[in-house]
Amino acid sequence: MAGSTLGTIFKITTWGESHGEGIGVVIDGCPAGLSLCAEDIQTFLDRRKPGQSKYTTARRESDAVSILSGIFEGKTTGTPISLVIFNQDQRSKDYGEIASYYRPGHADYTFDAKYGFRDYRGGGRSSGRETIGRVAAGAIAVKLLNQLGITLTSYTKSIGPIDCDEQNFDAAQITKNPLYMPDAKAAEEAQRYLDQCMAASDSSGGIIECIIKGMPVGIGDPVFEKLDANLAKAIFSIGAVKGFEIGDGFDAARATGKQNNDAFLLTPDGSVKKATNHAGGILGGISDGSDMILRAAVKPTPSIAAPQRTVNRAGEEINIQIKGRHDPVIVPRAVVVVESMAAITIADALLRNMSAQMADVKAFYSHET
Amino acid sequence: MAGSTLGTIFKITTWGESHGEGIGVVIDGCPAGLSLCAEDIQTFLDRRKPGQSKYTTARRESDAVSILSGIFEGKTTGTPISLVIFNQDQRSKDYGEIASYYRPGHADYTFDAKYGFRDYRGGGRSSGRETIGRVAAGAIAVKLLNQLGITLTSYTKSIGPIDCDEQNFDAAQITKNPLYMPDAKAAEEAQRYLDQCMAASDSSGGIIECIIKGMPVGIGDPVFEKLDANLAKAIFSIGAVKGFEIGDGFDAARATGKQNNDAFLLTPDGSVKKATNHAGGILGGISDGSDMILRAAVKPTPSIAAPQRTVNRAGEEINIQIKGRHDPVIVPRAVVVVESMAAITIADALLRNMSAQMADVKAFYSHET
Amino acid sequence: MAGSTLGTIFKITTWGESHGEGIGVVIDGCPAGLSLCAEDIQTFLDRRKPGQSKYTTARRESDAVSILSGIFEGKTTGTPISLVIFNQDQRSKDYGEIASYYRPGHADYTFDAKYGFRDYRGGGRSSGRETIGRVAAGAIAVKLLNQLGITLTSYTKSIGPIDCDEQNFDAAQITKNPLYMPDAKAAEEAQRYLDQCMAASDSSGGIIECIIKGMPVGIGDPVFEKLDANLAKAIFSIGAVKGFEIGDGFDAARATGKQNNDAFLLTPDGSVKKATNHAGGILGGISDGSDMILRAAVKPTPSIAAPQRTVNRAGEEINIQIKGRHDPVIVPRAVVVVESMAAITIADALLRNMSAQMADVKAFYSHET
Amino acid sequence: MAGSTLGTIFKITTWGESHGEGIGVVIDGCPAGLSLCAEDIQTFLDRRKPGQSKYTTARRESDAVSILSGIFEGKTTGTPISLVIFNQDQRSKDYGEIASYYRPGHADYTFDAKYGFRDYRGGGRSSGRETIGRVAAGAIAVKLLNQLGITLTSYTKSIGPIDCDEQNFDAAQITKNPLYMPDAKAAEEAQRYLDQCMAASDSSGGIIECIIKGMPVGIGDPVFEKLDANLAKAIFSIGAVKGFEIGDGFDAARATGKQNNDAFLLTPDGSVKKATNHAGGILGGISDGSDMILRAAVKPTPSIAAPQRTVNRAGEEINIQIKGRHDPVIVPRAVVVVESMAAITIADALLRNMSAQMADVKAFYSHET
Repeated sequence: MAGSTLGTIFKITTWGESHGEGIGVVIDGCPAGLSLCAEDIQTFLDRRKPGQSKYTTARRESDAVSILSGIFEGKTTGTPISLVIFNQDQRSKDYGEIASYYRPGHADYTFDAKYGFRDYRGGGRSSGRETIGRVAAGAIAVKLLNQLGITLTSYTKSIGPIDCDEQNFDAAQITKNPLYMPDAKAAEEAQRYLDQCMAASDSSGGIIECIIKGMPVGIGDPVFEKLDANLAKAIFSIGAVKGFEIGDGFDAARATGKQNNDAFLLTPDGSVKKATNHAGGILGGISDGSDMILRAAVKPTPSIAAPQRTVNRAGEEINIQIKGRHDPVIVPRAVVVVESMAAITIADALLRNMSAQMADVKAFYSHET
Repeated sequence: MAGSTLGTIFKITTWGESHGEGIGVVIDGCPAGLSLCAEDIQTFLDRRKPGQSKYTTARRESDAVSILSGIFEGKTTGTPISLVIFNQDQRSKDYGEIASYYRPGHADYTFDAKYGFRDYRGGGRSSGRETIGRVAAGAIAVKLLNQLGITLTSYTKSIGPIDCDEQNFDAAQITKNPLYMPDAKAAEEAQRYLDQCMAASDSSGGIIECIIKGMPVGIGDPVFEKLDANLAKAIFSIGAVKGFEIGDGFDAARATGKQNNDAFLLTPDGSVKKATNHAGGILGGISDGSDMILRAAVKPTPSIAAPQRTVNRAGEEINIQIKGRHDPVIVPRAVVVVESMAAITIADALLRNMSAQMADVKAFYSHET
Repeated sequence: MAGSTLGTIFKITTWGESHGEGIGVVIDGCPAGLSLCAEDIQTFLDRRKPGQSKYTTARRESDAVSILSGIFEGKTTGTPISLVIFNQDQRSKDYGEIASYYRPGHADYTFDAKYGFRDYRGGGRSSGRETIGRVAAGAIAVKLLNQLGITLTSYTKSIGPIDCDEQNFDAAQITKNPLYMPDAKAAEEAQRYLDQCMAASDSSGGIIECIIKGMPVGIGDPVFEKLDANLAKAIFSIGAVKGFEIGDGFDAARATGKQNNDAFLLTPDGSVKKATNHAGGILGGISDGSDMILRAAVKPTPSIAAPQRTVNRAGEEINIQIKGRHDPVIVPRAVVVVESMAAITIADALLRNMSAQMADVKAFYSHET
Repeated sequence: MAGSTLGTIFKITTWGESHGEGIGVVIDGCPAGLSLCAEDIQTFLDRRKPGQSKYTTARRESDAVSILSGIFEGKTTGTPISLVIFNQDQRSKDYGEIASYYRPGHADYTFDAKYGFRDYRGGGRSSGRETIGRVAAGAIAVKLLNQLGITLTSYTKSIGPIDCDEQNFDAAQITKNPLYMPDAKAAEEAQRYLDQCMAASDSSGGIIECIIKGMPVGIGDPVFEKLDANLAKAIFSIGAVKGFEIGDGFDAARATGKQNNDAFLLTPDGSVKKATNHAGGILGGISDGSDMILRAAVKPTPSIAAPQRTVNRAGEEINIQIKGRHDPVIVPRAVVVVESMAAITIADALLRNMSAQMADVKAFYSHET
């Protein structure tokens, strides 16, 4: 089944394997007239690029984007925007061995079972490099949202057992440490923790949080196209994500109604606000104008240097030791992926919402607004 | 935007409001030749019917299903199956008051903002009664899955702070207590806790768990149509869900790779198995043949009898007290909704998977295999 | 596969068989705030109702619509509108015989081959009664379009060899003859022709034309979602349609560029117009503001009283004679079906078009327009 | 709105402008294990390449395809196949003039109206070069169909008033004349006719026919996803198509039931056949196992050398004369485009059909077939 297309109006299609010619994405349905250049996209790609610190793989990739269509005179034309990032460091010789066995925690076995065989070089389509297309598209979605006064802030909330302390939250810190944590102290601790993991040939999971400010009220549709449902799908479609929550999330399951309900009140300018935001900005699947807050639980990098038990394609139980250097934690590089998927989902929902009321449709087509 | 249709091949469309004529669902794309009668569906609907215990609303609804199309001589024909459940207890007079203000934790405000007005009777389309259509469709999906050897077991994992103890797990208990908990002791404690909540005019959240056994390997598609991503969307589209996880879920974010990786091994018959199941039955978005385990965090019932602060449509801050009797906890009645959404999602994924390999396509069309 | 849902934003799902409980449609994504009552829909259904003249089947059906959801206080709420028309004259005893063989020109054989068996009563889902759901939805789409200043005029262009003469076109005539022809003289001739067909136990085909006035410029999307491509699909999805064309259609294939090109000119008020309209109101798949003109070729009713050769399910060649009275021509009753499908398609395209330009998106979300 | 993606399981997404970096297509959902190399695709592209005869534009383009993903060890992997054809002859200087005005018969005006501006170089996205992506995808679809015993034969049926004579039909002729006509005599006449058109600075339309042999019975879904409805959409989405028909098409509208009905009979091996094939291989939207026959009416090339009246963006009526050399007829190069769109549509329908019967689903998942 075709699984590489997402969205209804703002629609993206990604392609490419870790060690193929390249990775790309087609963004269709972006409104015409959005100013866009390669640098807008490159800035995002650089946030997930390998080789940024000792906590990321040393694979050498400039991950430079080329725009092949959809932009004319510096603006989107309304037609598909095709972006490609050619692979450079395709040393597939490293991967000859993994062709024969199933790495624990990876999709080697399930791909083989589904398709009969697989492009085993670097994980092929199930590689983390698949997210490059998402991030390239996310850069465009974020630019679109910014034009509407919507901003996203994303960061590492925790690494293994090390949590950021909300009291210490400082957005300026996020880009000042290699882990993208908004709490300098926690970032230091987390680095020490990761150093231990690496020393033990082990890896760590973590939690990513994304806050979206400036959301209009009314975005998202009832029933199956709830905004949080689509965010859940988009975030869960990122390789290593094992949990997703909005607002108080799993804590809400422990709470009572008195604790969890957000009272409505009026702002001095007469608009409706919530006194608290346990809901995380969504009520009944529709944005309520408060900050939207979402979190993704990311599992530890499955590629660890320690010996592991597994099975090979010949049907034998074997011991393996995965070679090469791998990220001891996926989380920091996945921060921009979560932000991208959130932005793509919200952009699509916004564009779908313009015809919710007959009065808006009439106003648009009378051209008298 | 149209938000009431879900699925690609096994596709459902729901309709209906709490106090309208009725609630219904159209299931399109169910394979022809599945034996099906009204009782198959009624059994599921009865699991979410109100009035089953003191922990559920006293609204009187028989929730009797009528099959209007798609069945002939006791079997599905491959054409749309239309099911309707007519509303009986539509005393909308109770709801005149809530027309004027926004109930905290409900979608009154966001519906008004999105559509300009709303069917305020009993929450209209955002009512919990909307899930009737899902459960009716879920009954069919479950019957289809059962034919393929796949079974689902769903239950209440926790109510507020009261968790089931895995050591005490007893599937036979699930239907023996009004909370659908598989741990008799926890069920008793939870009932005491709910009694306290009710006495305090308060309500409780909880967690639902669903285990799917007998899954074939290879179901789910890479990238955006991962099986867990579609499960996340389906489960998150249920009204009060605020969190979703697969396998170890958020705990995986605290773990290390050594702890979280599931080694592969061989069973005596030579098939591949995992030694553990932290992944919850899905690797790279594709089922790995282990049990699939998912959890949904459900928020406390927002309708509580205690006084609350809110805002009315006239733009005034007011105190309200919601009348009528409401479920002090949504969780027990939502168990079958979670199971239904999981089954619908898996049924669709299974039907989509049949053309993954060229060899299968050729075998099907040669009819000579 | 699910084939009973159409549309992206204005989305319809139909269900029901000729001799089942009833026929219905769910319309999802209709903007909130459109005034709507049962009579708006009934008027359309009455245009396709049987028993209107000697040229239509005598089956007794009032085809009375019930609105089950989506309307509140006389207006659409933005949630799914569920419409049902219960069958009355379900004398399925007449159909016992056709269970065993394949009627020429019908879908009996292909349904059996596809699904393994079929609801043979009155053609089941492949019956002409399936179009009731389309027409009910079409009534809503037309009402929506009318609010935007768009009107549709549909009629019988030809019956067998009898064509309307464009010189005699009189829209007022359309409803004055049982064939819905805009040329009184042609209507008389066509009736004589049909009398001959009936006397010969034969039937006739014909052509339906639909003109859409008041279209805004810019509706339809490039490449696969061209407005004419979606109209082609929508019209071709009507049972007996074998051909479709826009503007000059097949005549354009005989023409030269000089003949076929429509020069642009300016109207006194400075807007752009075309001097001619060979294109039928669409250029590059996008509406150009001229009248849209489309035609559908409808095959002769396959149910004829004359003896025919066919094959039965037991694998024998047999002679059959189809009993009961059948329309000698489908065309007059299909006129409103063509109009409905055109309106549904255009409504969806209009709602999709509102986000084509970034400036419009910004204006909508700044709420300063 | 996103309009560049087509299909449900076999899904294609095209991108690119006439004078941008290149043209491409992503094919997602192609089953794994299909042998595929660049030459398979190049053969198809060469059939629509410019510069093949004096009847096609002299633009120099090798139209060489690169495969960027989805193939491993010579076979499809089940993941997206990304194909790109880089533009070479991008002399956009020729197009400065047409930036300012609207060419009759082109989409310049409608693109401007829809998007606010347009990539005017060579028609941008509305250029005939957009079909390159379709043909590249079509090559893969045809290869897939061939594996299932399905073959497509496509040719020019008529050029302007010159029709092929069915009596002279000789498939071997198709590739022996520059017009792809299966009738050598008609091809000569048509060339004389085109010479006259060119001498008169004029152009010609024509009709393309496609015959599909070897179709299994049962492909296509009832109601909106009828196989002919999807073929209609796919073919009508090709730029210059103004009419589409199946089987007898518009002639069926002139016929009677006795003439048009195809009797069923038995072949010596006991299978069901039709005595005639007025239906063109489809009954009730589902393939009946006979040859499928479809035709597309193609309008004359709108770019003619003769002077024309039009309007410019400054709102003035002007006389224009389009420079450069243009195809005097689109039809011969569009033959492979029609075939490609037909193949893409059929491939998708075939893959969707595999779950129509519960017995097939059970057989697939029991792996005992």
